[in-house]
Amino acid sequence: MATATALARPRTHGIVLDLIRAARTISRVELVEASGLTGATITNVVRELLDDGLIEEAGRAESTGGKPRTLLRLRARARFTVGVQLDRCSCTIVIIDLAGQLVARTAMGGAGLRSPRETLIAVADHLDGLMATADVQRSLVLGIGLVSQGPQDLTSGRLLTGNPMGAWHGYPLLDELEAITGLPVLLDNDATAAAIGEFWIGGVEPASTYGCIYMASGIGGGVVSRGGVYRGGTSNSVEIGHVSLDIDGETCECGNRGCLEHYAGPEAVIAGAERVPGLSRRLGLTHGDTDTLVNFTRIARAAMAGDPEPLRLLHASARYVAHAAIGLASLFDLDAVVLAGQSFASAGSIYAEAMQTQLDRTGFARDVHPVQVLLSKSGADAAAIGGAVLVLRSELTPRDLRRPDGQSLRYTEPHPVRDLPITA
Amino acid sequence: MATATALARPRTHGIVLDLIRAARTISRVELVEASGLTGATITNVVRELLDDGLIEEAGRAESTGGKPRTLLRLRARARFTVGVQLDRCSCTIVIIDLAGQLVARTAMGGAGLRSPRETLIAVADHLDGLMATADVQRSLVLGIGLVSQGPQDLTSGRLLTGNPMGAWHGYPLLDELEAITGLPVLLDNDATAAAIGEFWIGGVEPASTYGCIYMASGIGGGVVSRGGVYRGGTSNSVEIGHVSLDIDGETCECGNRGCLEHYAGPEAVIAGAERVPGLSRRLGLTHGDTDTLVNFTRIARAAMAGDPEPLRLLHASARYVAHAAIGLASLFDLDAVVLAGQSFASAGSIYAEAMQTQLDRTGFARDVHPVQVLLSKSGADAAAIGGAVLVLRSELTPRDLRRPDGQSLRYTEPHPVRDLPITA
Repeated sequence: MATATALARPRTHGIVLDLIRAARTISRVELVEASGLTGATITNVVRELLDDGLIEEAGRAESTGGKPRTLLRLRARARFTVGVQLDRCSCTIVIIDLAGQLVARTAMGGAGLRSPRETLIAVADHLDGLMATADVQRSLVLGIGLVSQGPQDLTSGRLLTGNPMGAWHGYPLLDELEAITGLPVLLDNDATAAAIGEFWIGGVEPASTYGCIYMASGIGGGVVSRGGVYRGGTSNSVEIGHVSLDIDGETCECGNRGCLEHYAGPEAVIAGAERVPGLSRRLGLTHGDTDTLVNFTRIARAAMAGDPEPLRLLHASARYVAHAAIGLASLFDLDAVVLAGQSFASAGSIYAEAMQTQLDRTGFARDVHPVQVLLSKSGADAAAIGGAVLVLRSELTPRDLRRPDGQSLRYTEPHPVRDLPITA
Repeated sequence: MATATALARPRTHGIVLDLIRAARTISRVELVEASGLTGATITNVVRELLDDGLIEEAGRAESTGGKPRTLLRLRARARFTVGVQLDRCSCTIVIIDLAGQLVARTAMGGAGLRSPRETLIAVADHLDGLMATADVQRSLVLGIGLVSQGPQDLTSGRLLTGNPMGAWHGYPLLDELEAITGLPVLLDNDATAAAIGEFWIGGVEPASTYGCIYMASGIGGGVVSRGGVYRGGTSNSVEIGHVSLDIDGETCECGNRGCLEHYAGPEAVIAGAERVPGLSRRLGLTHGDTDTLVNFTRIARAAMAGDPEPLRLLHASARYVAHAAIGLASLFDLDAVVLAGQSFASAGSIYAEAMQTQLDRTGFARDVHPVQVLLSKSGADAAAIGGAVLVLRSELTPRDLRRPDGQSLRYTEPHPVRDLPITA
């Protein structure tokens, strides 16, 4: 498998590659300073990375006395990783290079009513096509980051939800996609991946604490604090779609009452549109099981164009999302809330404006610091990009990601979180 | 000042002391293995700690070949730290030793209607009395961890709330208490401290992710994940008392609607009791501004004794707290919820039972893992103990805790949080 060598590398190689990526060009002496590693270690690691073709020399820098220093840079196209965002209504596939730059993207229909296996075969077919088009050799692909909704069992690589359909609950997604593609696969939460993707793309201040609210056909979330992802016990965190905004509210399919997604998610907005006489026909709404995103986008476009009924529906939804965001900010002490995912890609500005007003007026810590509402820089692609970044970083900074046979990127336990000190 | 030497120590000393504390007795060779430091470093650090009288030799262990190894242990009473939990209705003061064991405790009335300065002088008087009674020399006290409600500005050591009274908002609590006591002081959130105290006391699994709901006269919270405190942007996190459970609910004094504390906090429970004809008189409820805890305790005792009206009031409150706990668990992916603080000390079992039932039935991740509801092991003292632990750990593991003049424990920036890796 392509990654066996990379996985066998010690952690120092990942640190050095990360530093080179961040600096674009850097000398060995600067690597010693930045890494805290010894000169001898840097010399050895750099030689091995040069031998593997992951980095190359890039001329010389003026030195402050002494001989000029040789600069090093990544060979961006030496390796690639793949991100796949998959849910019932949508699937986005991206390829990024070693430098973290987007190389290619494509989209296909989501899982819909297909079986998991059919769906994964379709994903693999589209990925093959994408690699061919982008001239990316399979042997240079480090792995696939598959991201989907929670709850999930990251250890076994399975969804623990009957969404998209009952057959997906407990299906060995990770094993199957590895078998079909011949590539290592890791599974993660789509909203967590979107939060990571947004960080990677530069959509947020790196030192900030931000929450990502991810709205595709459902609503999820992720929190990153000063460059660290909040994971919790089993990486099933920030499930903001199932936070209740009404203790006496309607029962959600999750079993709780008054959940955000139940009142404000795309399906609730569409149901609202269907209750307005004539609106559904006027906007051309359809009734397929996998039409949620298409229908929501039609409502969003009409609202953006100033159509008052669709606008009223989105404002009603935004009021709930804002209220949930206030709670998220009070619990996670956020500097910013980023709106990502397909549904915010089409209607984000309406939500952002309404949310900013409410956060400024009633956020608990509004006198301590503002909470800024931001639109995702990558919109619909953030989750897929985050999935690809997770592979890139897992690969280059290996921790506990190896199977006993050393061949896979699979997480052998819930994502290793570097412990925060109790004095934090 | 007593702590100048300790503060000047490098981080290695704190690591070694923490390892010795955890192991109770440990040899130099075992310290090398456990710390990852070199043998030469351990030799030097151990010599300095012996010279400072912080540790002592404690006999020899059988060795596996070679000469027997000398064991080291803490001199528990070589240093002490103080924790002060202070709010409107209550104040608890504790002293712990270098081993983290409780040496002495006392309680006094809270801030009430007194000015900040009067209150801090009273705290200092009580502390003097406690040190005298417990035979703790001032010169051996490393500092005071003062914990109170949020929001706070940890950088300047001030509360950013008009609670207990307007005069407290922005008052230089930390500077004043340092001036009055001559001891270094750090300020932190009481609920965060309670979460840390509970960890320290052994009330939770060290590797678990748990939320602490802290109910004294108000409701706050803290989250610890695998030994790391979640801090967020400015350490004003987990303000669960002001998370909304009803988007169309009554306006809370924080400005938001439908807040947990507004419906379920001790003052809401007392107000409920006052609306039941004759109950207030029967339970002997009083009407002073600082009687919240006393009155709540009277209601709680009656409920615990099976009095149906008080029981109904607490069940109503517990229903809200449980609903908020479900949201907290969904967002932070918790393994456990710990109930701490004076109000749960008197009525915790009623809350715990109701909450466990609701979490088992409707928690989002209930199929992934259970969320266990636990009563604090230290009840009313958890926050004060946490305050003392914060000083102990800050002192022994110094990070960015020095003023430019190197003399204080004050946080020079929001609590330093060790970054979680983006791949976490």
